Amino acid sequence: MPKSPDLNRRRRADAARLVADVLRRGIDRGDRADRLDEQRLADEFGVSRNAIRDALALLSAEGRIDRGPRVGTRVARRRAEHGIDELCGLSETLAGYGCVRNEIRVATIVRAPAAVARRLHLEPSADVVYIERLRFLDQEPVSLDLTYLVPDVGVPLLGLDLENHDVFGLIEHSTGRPLHSARHSVEAATADPHSAAILDVPPGAALLLIERLTALGPERRPVDLEYIRMRSDRITLHATALRAASEH
Amino acid sequence: MPKSPDLNRRRRADAARLVADVLRRGIDRGDRADRLDEQRLADEFGVSRNAIRDALALLSAEGRIDRGPRVGTRVARRRAEHGIDELCGLSETLAGYGCVRNEIRVATIVRAPAAVARRLHLEPSADVVYIERLRFLDQEPVSLDLTYLVPDVGVPLLGLDLENHDVFGLIEHSTGRPLHSARHSVEAATADPHSAAILDVPPGAALLLIERLTALGPERRPVDLEYIRMRSDRITLHATALRAASEH
Repeated sequence: MPKSPDLNRRRRADAARLVADVLRRGIDRGDRADRLDEQRLADEFGVSRNAIRDALALLSAEGRIDRGPRVGTRVARRRAEHGIDELCGLSETLAGYGCVRNEIRVATIVRAPAAVARRLHLEPSADVVYIERLRFLDQEPVSLDLTYLVPDVGVPLLGLDLENHDVFGLIEHSTGRPLHSARHSVEAATADPHSAAILDVPPGAALLLIERLTALGPERRPVDLEYIRMRSDRITLHATALRAASEH
Repeated sequence: MPKSPDLNRRRRADAARLVADVLRRGIDRGDRADRLDEQRLADEFGVSRNAIRDALALLSAEGRIDRGPRVGTRVARRRAEHGIDELCGLSETLAGYGCVRNEIRVATIVRAPAAVARRLHLEPSADVVYIERLRFLDQEPVSLDLTYLVPDVGVPLLGLDLENHDVFGLIEHSTGRPLHSARHSVEAATADPHSAAILDVPPGAALLLIERLTALGPERRPVDLEYIRMRSDRITLHATALRAASEH
C-alpha cells in the first residue's frame, strides 16, 4: 500500500471520487439524463477534465453509465430503490420497476440449527420451514434469499404459490394477522464464486448482505429469519433516521 | 458462467453459504465465542464437515475468524454496530467500541456543484462548506466522509474542533437547535485502489457507500449532505422497519 503516493495523482483521485459520489445518486434519481458532458461537468465541479474522466470511468465500472466513441456518455440504467424503514416484500417494493418472480430452490422442513432456533424463540432442535429462493426482477436475478420460518407459520406456506408471491403477503394472508416489524443488519460483501454464478455477477462483485428478523402481530413474535444477498448493482437501500431528543 | 455445475459441488457450496450466513451474525453478536468446532457444527447444521470447512473458509476470508493448525478456529473480532434508524454521529454510535478521531483532509468553502446546491435547497453556484474527513476507530481508519454544509450552518464549524467531535453534535451546539432526521441511501461497493489505500483495505474490498441528507429543526431544512465510505469489515448497519397498515 503506497504510504506517500504522488500528490497530483492523489489530488486527481480525490477529485474524481468527489465528482463520482455526487453524480452517482443523481443518476439513480433520474436527475442526470443528459448532463454528462465532460466540459460541463468540469465547470460544475471546478476540477480538471482528467478528474471528470476518472469519475466517469468509476461510474462506468459500476454499470451506471455507458461510454463510447460514437454514443458519448449516457446513463445506462437506474437502480431500483428498496426502503428498509417500511417493511415490504420485494415484489411490493419493486412494483414500479418490473415483475418479481421467485425460483424456489428449496422449500422443506428441517431441524433448526441451534442459532436459528434461538433467534426464533424455539426449543433447540425444533423443526423449522426452510425456503431458498432466487428472486428475479423481470428476467434478471437480483436477490438470493434463505428463509427460516417457525413451523406453525411456515408449514401452511409450503402449499401456497411461493413462485409469484412475497412470503410477507403469504404470511399475512395465511395467518390472517399483520406483520409488525423487522430488524435488519446490513453489510457489504464481495460475491463468492458460487453466489456470483447464481446471481449472474462477476466473482468479487459487491453485494448487500442482509439479515432480517421479522415479527408477527402486536406481540412481536419472531417468526421469519432471513439471510438475503442482494445485487447492489440493481437495488439500493433507503432508510430514514430520526434524531433522538437532544439536550441542546 | 457454469449453466449446470456439478451437483455435488453446488450442494456443498449451497450448504456452506447457509452455514456461513447463520454463523456470521452470531459471531458479530458475540454468541459464538467457542462453538466453532467442525464436528459440532456439522451436527448442528446437519451438513458434511467439508461444507463446514468451506463455510469457515468464507468467514476467515471476511476476517471474522482466525484458523490455524495450533490455535484451531477462533473468533477474530466482532464488527461494530451502527444504527441507521436513530440519527447518531459516528463517535456517539461507536462509543462502546473505542475512540473516534477524525483526520481533517479538507475543510473549506467551495462553490456548490449544481446537484449539491439542489439537494441543499441553495441557489445554483451558492457557496457551501466542504469538509473531508478520514475517521479512525482507535488507530484504524473505518470511514471516509465527504460533507457539504449550507454556509450559515457550516461556516461556524470551521473554527471548531472537527478532529475530536462529530459534525452532528457541533451543528446542534453551534446553532442551538436539534437535528430532525436524515435520509440514507445505502449500497455495497468495491473499493477503488485510491479509496482502498486511504482506508487501509485491499483494493476490491467491500465497502458500504452511504448518501445521507440531514435536516435541521422541526422545519426539516436540509443542511448537511454527506457521502460516506464505510469499511464493512469493521461496521455493520442496523435498521428497524415497521409494517404499514395492511388490509389483512
